[in-house]
Amino acid sequence: MDVTVGVIGLGNVGSGTLEILAENGARIREKLGFPLRVKAICSRNVARKKAPAFPDAVTRTTDWREVVRDPEIDIIVELVGGTATAGHIIEEALRNRKSVVTANKELMAIRGAELWAMASENGVNLAMEASVAGGIPIHTILREGIAGDRVCELYGVLNGTSNFILTEIEKSNAKFESVLAEAQQLGYAEADPSADVDGLDARSKLAILAALAFGERLTPADIYTEGIRRILPVDFEYAHQLKHTIRLLCLARQSDDGLLLSVRPSLIPQSAILAQVQGAYNAVWIRGAYGEDTFYYGRGAGPKPTGVAVVSDLMRVAREIRHGSPDRVSPFAHERLGEYKPLPIPTQALPYFLRFRVEDKAGIIATLATILAKHQIGIDAVLQLPREDWRDLPFVITTEPAKEQAIRDALVEIREADFLVEAPLAMPMERGF
Amino acid sequence: MDVTVGVIGLGNVGSGTLEILAENGARIREKLGFPLRVKAICSRNVARKKAPAFPDAVTRTTDWREVVRDPEIDIIVELVGGTATAGHIIEEALRNRKSVVTANKELMAIRGAELWAMASENGVNLAMEASVAGGIPIHTILREGIAGDRVCELYGVLNGTSNFILTEIEKSNAKFESVLAEAQQLGYAEADPSADVDGLDARSKLAILAALAFGERLTPADIYTEGIRRILPVDFEYAHQLKHTIRLLCLARQSDDGLLLSVRPSLIPQSAILAQVQGAYNAVWIRGAYGEDTFYYGRGAGPKPTGVAVVSDLMRVAREIRHGSPDRVSPFAHERLGEYKPLPIPTQALPYFLRFRVEDKAGIIATLATILAKHQIGIDAVLQLPREDWRDLPFVITTEPAKEQAIRDALVEIREADFLVEAPLAMPMERGF
Repeated sequence: MDVTVGVIGLGNVGSGTLEILAENGARIREKLGFPLRVKAICSRNVARKKAPAFPDAVTRTTDWREVVRDPEIDIIVELVGGTATAGHIIEEALRNRKSVVTANKELMAIRGAELWAMASENGVNLAMEASVAGGIPIHTILREGIAGDRVCELYGVLNGTSNFILTEIEKSNAKFESVLAEAQQLGYAEADPSADVDGLDARSKLAILAALAFGERLTPADIYTEGIRRILPVDFEYAHQLKHTIRLLCLARQSDDGLLLSVRPSLIPQSAILAQVQGAYNAVWIRGAYGEDTFYYGRGAGPKPTGVAVVSDLMRVAREIRHGSPDRVSPFAHERLGEYKPLPIPTQALPYFLRFRVEDKAGIIATLATILAKHQIGIDAVLQLPREDWRDLPFVITTEPAKEQAIRDALVEIREADFLVEAPLAMPMERGF
Repeated sequence: MDVTVGVIGLGNVGSGTLEILAENGARIREKLGFPLRVKAICSRNVARKKAPAFPDAVTRTTDWREVVRDPEIDIIVELVGGTATAGHIIEEALRNRKSVVTANKELMAIRGAELWAMASENGVNLAMEASVAGGIPIHTILREGIAGDRVCELYGVLNGTSNFILTEIEKSNAKFESVLAEAQQLGYAEADPSADVDGLDARSKLAILAALAFGERLTPADIYTEGIRRILPVDFEYAHQLKHTIRLLCLARQSDDGLLLSVRPSLIPQSAILAQVQGAYNAVWIRGAYGEDTFYYGRGAGPKPTGVAVVSDLMRVAREIRHGSPDRVSPFAHERLGEYKPLPIPTQALPYFLRFRVEDKAGIIATLATILAKHQIGIDAVLQLPREDWRDLPFVITTEPAKEQAIRDALVEIREADFLVEAPLAMPMERGF
């Protein structure tokens, strides 16, 4: 007996998924012991969509309700995206006792635990490997592979678009705006790039991973988030002087004060393996109480890499359906001890990289040093590369380890200074991993 | 209702496993929804073994038969190692309808498929995450995480001891023998180091991964294997000149001719992420037809990292027992299409690094070049660092891409030359990944 699938949403990931199901069908059947049959595909403009040939007839429809109500379909693949229609599709599918496989990071980050509870009540499954880090099976790794460990820290580069932009700025010394335009031309960035470059996409992904690693009640609102719009080529020059580079770092770290969750541009040592993550790749570094350090790396997105995640989820869910045992591993309730409280602001003392752009005049360093000292922030180094424009001179102060709150308070005062060309940029300097 | 466990073998991994089960018990219970209870521990010298405190009484015994026959025990953890007693333990456990979790790479590489079939017939499970790459959940990744993909190539650094030795030779310029002695003192290498330095341990691990990725009939005998005993500090000097380094590379690669399986010291570019794998770490690089490149890195061994693998397997198997559905994912029968035929000898043309030690005299290069030309092997470069001892001069020839068979045939002829101090060393130069 086969297990039947309805695919709703035929964008990049949808077509990648269908191609894998068609091309790799014999292998999937062999691995499962039974076939996965695509029974229906659905898209608003399904008539214009190409789909590969399958052995059995496939219904094509523009009406998702037809698919989620089809009594012969066992699993719904939701690839519509967004939170509105996708939410309705998943709810109705679960109510109709169909399992759901989704790539929807936004919806899973906000309503995942609630929807999983609904799946559980209906005796079906909700699988979301494809929602985070495309080609890296990081959800399976956390949920099953290292389930016996206790995660202490998790670092990730989870947004391929911003990583592409940052590594391009680094390589070509070009400005953010021109690299963004290039990324848009290449199809790496959306016309509205906000989700990527303001860190919102990465924040959803971190929320999903942190919920699995640290507790189901974590949502994007718990995550301190800063994007990459303000990063200048000169920031890389200074970072390199310090033998560091800059990445949009997603971080979940257990501390004595609580759980530190942030998405922000950060300095990391060039020797760190995460610094090797170039272009549109993603990576996750996990430190476990028992397993120590592990590192995972792969394509962050793309029709086929993300399609592998969808198909692998389909295989797992199909196996559970076939063998009459819905998977009992919640993708959210993995940790429910309630011992992890998200921190509103990072409390761990770290060295900071403070970049200023100033109109050169006497006494600038003295002014800054006085304000920093007042907030108990020690100066580690002052770096200034040779520049010509005295009206817009960039330079960097690195600090001794200090807390985020102290840095912010100092910057509020510094912002009053009349020599600033723009507000200072502060980035923590993370250790090597 | 709890699921009960009997642990046989209380060496490093056994004690790591028990510590995690004790310390992390509340979390494991929370993740599972029911407790894992250790009912019995067994070792030849159990009286002298310390074990952590558990909430329920734990039977201590020297007789493994008592454990595998205990009707109250659901899962046997086999950590005895070797192929003799361990084989009897697993067979009897499976016959008694107990699932088995094992870290035994040697036994799984040789008899895994047969034992898994026995488990399947008895409606129980046989789990082996801990048998390969300690802290990296590579078995789960291949079996579940990227199940929808088709693996084309798999590269690994799978033996921590040889990687430690190689990276020490690289760093300190010391000879193999003295680094081995140091590794033995540190407890990284056994008194009899053969399994590690001759590539046998890595070969078993590659056999297990290749069986999962390419077909159940693969065994260690299918794998071309060379160890690291002949690697000299000067090999690293030459490799560095070529911007490469040397690793004991495990490789499974699909080619038009068949399946290439080898464990051998190989040159890899210093820029490759695998070159970052230092000391006792392990790593696996996978290229999938759809998911493209993914990379996984972590501790290769150690009581707790390997213990995490054992405990994570225990959780998965316990969940299946509790929910009445033995896992149907064979760790071996993952691919059974029979399209992969192991090659007795690598057939892909690669550049080779040929290192010679000679007594200097006129005409050496001419002799070598003539023999290589006769076998259609082009010379890419001849490297010679300044040396003083004319009676033992090392130098290197790198070749244009050539097949292993041609290289071997040429070396047979070259070995006749009267100027050689020892047989030439040949290593393929792999591309970057």
